[in-house]
This record gives sequence, C-alpha cells and structure tokens, in this order.
Amino acid sequence: MAFLYKADPARGAQWAKLFAQKAPDLPFHIWPELGDPDAIRYLAAWQPPDDPTRLFPNLEVVFSVGAGIDQFDLSGVPAHVPVVRMIEPGIVEGMVEYVTQAVLTIHRDLFDYGLQQHQQVWRELPLKPAGARRIGVLGLGVLGTAVLEKLRLFGFACAGWSRSPREIEGVDCYAGESALDEFLARTDILVCLLPLTPATRGLLNAGLFARLPRGASLIQTGRGPHLNQPDLLAALDSGQLHNAILDVTDPEPLPAGHRLWTHPRVRITPHIASATRPESAVEVVLDNLRRHREGLPMLGQIDRTQGY
Amino acid sequence: MAFLYKADPARGAQWAKLFAQKAPDLPFHIWPELGDPDAIRYLAAWQPPDDPTRLFPNLEVVFSVGAGIDQFDLSGVPAHVPVVRMIEPGIVEGMVEYVTQAVLTIHRDLFDYGLQQHQQVWRELPLKPAGARRIGVLGLGVLGTAVLEKLRLFGFACAGWSRSPREIEGVDCYAGESALDEFLARTDILVCLLPLTPATRGLLNAGLFARLPRGASLIQTGRGPHLNQPDLLAALDSGQLHNAILDVTDPEPLPAGHRLWTHPRVRITPHIASATRPESAVEVVLDNLRRHREGLPMLGQIDRTQGY
Repeated sequence: MAFLYKADPARGAQWAKLFAQKAPDLPFHIWPELGDPDAIRYLAAWQPPDDPTRLFPNLEVVFSVGAGIDQFDLSGVPAHVPVVRMIEPGIVEGMVEYVTQAVLTIHRDLFDYGLQQHQQVWRELPLKPAGARRIGVLGLGVLGTAVLEKLRLFGFACAGWSRSPREIEGVDCYAGESALDEFLARTDILVCLLPLTPATRGLLNAGLFARLPRGASLIQTGRGPHLNQPDLLAALDSGQLHNAILDVTDPEPLPAGHRLWTHPRVRITPHIASATRPESAVEVVLDNLRRHREGLPMLGQIDRTQGY
Repeated sequence: MAFLYKADPARGAQWAKLFAQKAPDLPFHIWPELGDPDAIRYLAAWQPPDDPTRLFPNLEVVFSVGAGIDQFDLSGVPAHVPVVRMIEPGIVEGMVEYVTQAVLTIHRDLFDYGLQQHQQVWRELPLKPAGARRIGVLGLGVLGTAVLEKLRLFGFACAGWSRSPREIEGVDCYAGESALDEFLARTDILVCLLPLTPATRGLLNAGLFARLPRGASLIQTGRGPHLNQPDLLAALDSGQLHNAILDVTDPEPLPAGHRLWTHPRVRITPHIASATRPESAVEVVLDNLRRHREGLPMLGQIDRTQGY
C-alpha cells in the first residue's frame, strides 16, 4: 500500500516530510519515481496520468492538490475510483484574504486614488458606507461561503448565487438560472468563485455584464475560462464595468503584450489568491484516508454527475 | 440656546437638515451666520475661532468634527468649557476598512505584484500564512482597538502599544516607553493610530524604523506630523522598510513634485481613511448634549492635561 504524489516537486518534498512524520507506515513516492505500481492505492495530482487504473491497477482514490478539478480529465478515472478535491484551511484562508482585499480596494476607490497618485492629485472622492455597497458572490461552495461570512462583518450588503438553494446567515441567497437576473441587477461588486464546468465556461461575458448596474466591478477568482476577455475589455471601455481584479486568466501565464496587462483599471495577479499549504493539506488528506478506510464519505468528494 | 457649526459648509448643510428633524427646538447656525452670539451654547468646529468665549460668552461645549483635536488651539478654550472629539460609528467603520485593506495589501504582496504587472511578469511570490505575520498598532483608542478586533479575525499575530495599559482579547498589549522596543522588534507591519501630541510629534523617525525588523512596512493613518518624511524615504531606500501606505502627510495636500508621490513602494491617499458621517455624527452629538444636560460625562471628552 503506497501513496503517489504527482504535482510540483518542491511541494512534493514538503508532503514527503510530513507523511514521514504523520504516516510513517505508508510509503510515499513523488512522480516519476513509482516503486511497485501495484502497491499504489492513493494518487494526489494536479493532473493525473492518462488511464491511471491501467498504470496502477489497485488505485482506490484520486486526490486533486487544487481546490478545483477542472484540470482533470475525469473520463480517464473509472467511476468506482472516488475523486476528491482539496478543501483545506490554507486554501480557504488565502481566498478570504484575497477577496476581502479586492472588495475593499474597489469599495474604497483605491484604483481611482492610484490613478490620482500617478497624476500627483490630492482630491477626496465621495465615500459610500459599506451598507450601501452590494456585493454578490457567484458560487456558494466552501470558498464562496467563507468569503461572504467575512465580508458581512464589514457591513456590506451581501448576496450569493448558486445552482442549488443555500442558506447563509446575513446573506441574501439566490438559486438557479431563473434568479440570476435579479441577483446581477442588485450587485455592485461581482465575485466569481464558481467551479469550471461546461455550464460555467464563458459565463462572464457581455450578456452577463449588461445585466449588472452600470459601473459595476468584477473580481475574478474562479478559473480563467469563465471569462470572455475581449468582452471584459469592451465592457471596461464602454463604462459598463468600472474596473476588474483578475487572479486567473486564459491562458496562464498571461502572455506579455496582452492588453489586460496595461489596462489602467485592471489588476492582474498570477493565480496566487489561494494555494494549498502542505501542512494543512496533508492533515486533510490523511483524515480522508482514515474516512475512506472506515467507509465514511470523504470531505471534498466530487459528484461525478455534476463535475464538482 | 443655539448650536453653531464651523467647518465644511456642504457637510454643515447636511447637519442642519438632520438637526431640523431630530432637534427642531434647537436653533442651528452655520458659520459665519451666527444669530444672537449670546445664544450660542454649543460649537462644533474643525478649528474654533480665536478666543471663542469672548465671541460667545455663554458657550458650554466645544465639539470637534474630527476624531482628533490636534488642529485645535486648546489654549484658546477656557478650562471650564469641555472639549469633545468625534467618536462615531462612521469614523470607526471607515478606519477599519482602510487599515484592513492596507494590511492585506502588504500581507499579500500586492505592491510587488503591482510592479510585476507593470513589467508584464507572471511570477508567484512565496506566501506567508496570516499567523506568521505580526501586526502592531500604535495607539489603542477606539480606532486602534476596532482595527485590531477586525484584524485578529484573519488570524494575524496581533499586538498593540499604548501609553497606559489596555487589554484587548486576542491581542498582545504593550504599554509605556519601556515596552516600545519589544513591541517594535516583533512587528512586521506597523500601523500608526496615535493622537498627535507634543510627545508623539515626529515619533515615526529613523530611530524608530531601526528598531523594527528589517523589511518591515508602515501604515500611517495618524496625523502627518507623526512622520519624519525624509527619514521614511531613507529607510525605504536602505531596505530597512519595504513599503509604506500613507493616508496623511505634512503638509496636506502633499505638494506636486514631492518625492513621496512617485516612490514605487509608497502609496498615498488624500486623508480619506475615515470621515465623519453626518447621520451618525449628529446622533452622537445629540446624545452628548443630552448627557451634558443631565450632568453625565460626554463620550469622547478630552482630558485637557493629556491633550487627547
């Protein structure tokens, strides 16, 4: 019985050290070093190899090392092998920090003050109280929920949208296609924390931007292919959107020379909003292995029919 | 019996409207319109006129419209007339938002990512967990306390320093000159929320910066004269400080051409961190008038011996 890690080797070395401390009886391999392929029961990967059960006939669980599994070819993983995404406190903490900073940056006009600093202009802009600023989060999974729970402590008018109904204290929750229009019409700052699926690919497009109030803002912390980038640039140029903060792009890295890099009302960061932390990630994986052995459902297990 | 307002006339008009609704029996004047000077019992001002009790012999209370009273010439106000600074929820909310945004900006390396965006470079920087980031707030009044109570919800290692001992849950509190060295030595991000007094003028200088860990950051939300600006520039250039966020400068406005405007690791905003909101400010003033009439201490009343 062995564990195989197939992702960034530097982080893999940290995982190996933690496994040696916390699960010394479970042999740990870092791809491409495999040991006996028949012994591999557990695989943690950013992208699994093609046809993993042919390589590892006794494979029992596939873990994603990321919060999403859109980078996985799920068709290559047989239905009897559960796929588990990474929900660990480090990822949640990072995302809450990033989105809170982004919302406060927009709320307190720090894009505009940055442009004023560039022009050496000292001029106060009108201040809106938090209660009059309407935040809307697309996607109410673990990350979207944690973000809203922090934002509401600042007194923002908070709402969320998800495919199926949710309840979050102090947050107006909208559900399903039919409620999307109403949700967008009341949203000044839109945060995308959706999973990437065929249904959400390209969702952030001209049609959606047009349903936001004029001058709204976008915080894109989902996946690059959610966003139609030319539509975003057009909406910024027309004034339909006032500014945008993007942590993900398509492709990544964003190529040098791309217009998004130099737009004065776009902030780009290199997919750093949130990252798995080896310490807490290994805790969560080991806890899931225990659950799996005891026949309990694992935390973050994917519903293969929904793809997230 | 009448109330006189002497500050920004546009805000004064909002105050007048609120007084007309909430205290219709109390005549309200906006400087320089005075009515009968003998009737003026209460004065709310950014800066009181010289010798106010000569102008208004029946003056009973002077209110500052700002959170500080360093802009007052207290020697012109006789000792029997209480001076009250503005502590109202709007000022607190604005300051908590501003400082949280500033701390998260530094914590998540958004200065450095901004410089990378300028160079069109997509490169992840090492991420520090909040628990390993040491925040230190100078000044534990209403604003400093509220800021720390929000920051600790993000998991930061929080400390505060004040002249006299305080206790704040989840915050390491240091008190007095003798504890300042220890407080500074453990502080990665220093936030100044001190009142401006003869003892704090020029406190943020080369000597203080040298007692912080190398590469620390400064968030200056106190008053411009707390900071020795040439010392800050020298500390940034030597690497002793990594970056600084300044909401206040000396003088204000910061003159065009000043080197602080163009330093790549300095953010300047035009004294906008926090502003009195007429709605909540008028509530607080009317509540203090009631307390004054009933012989109770007013909220925010200045200790004339300490000057804050």
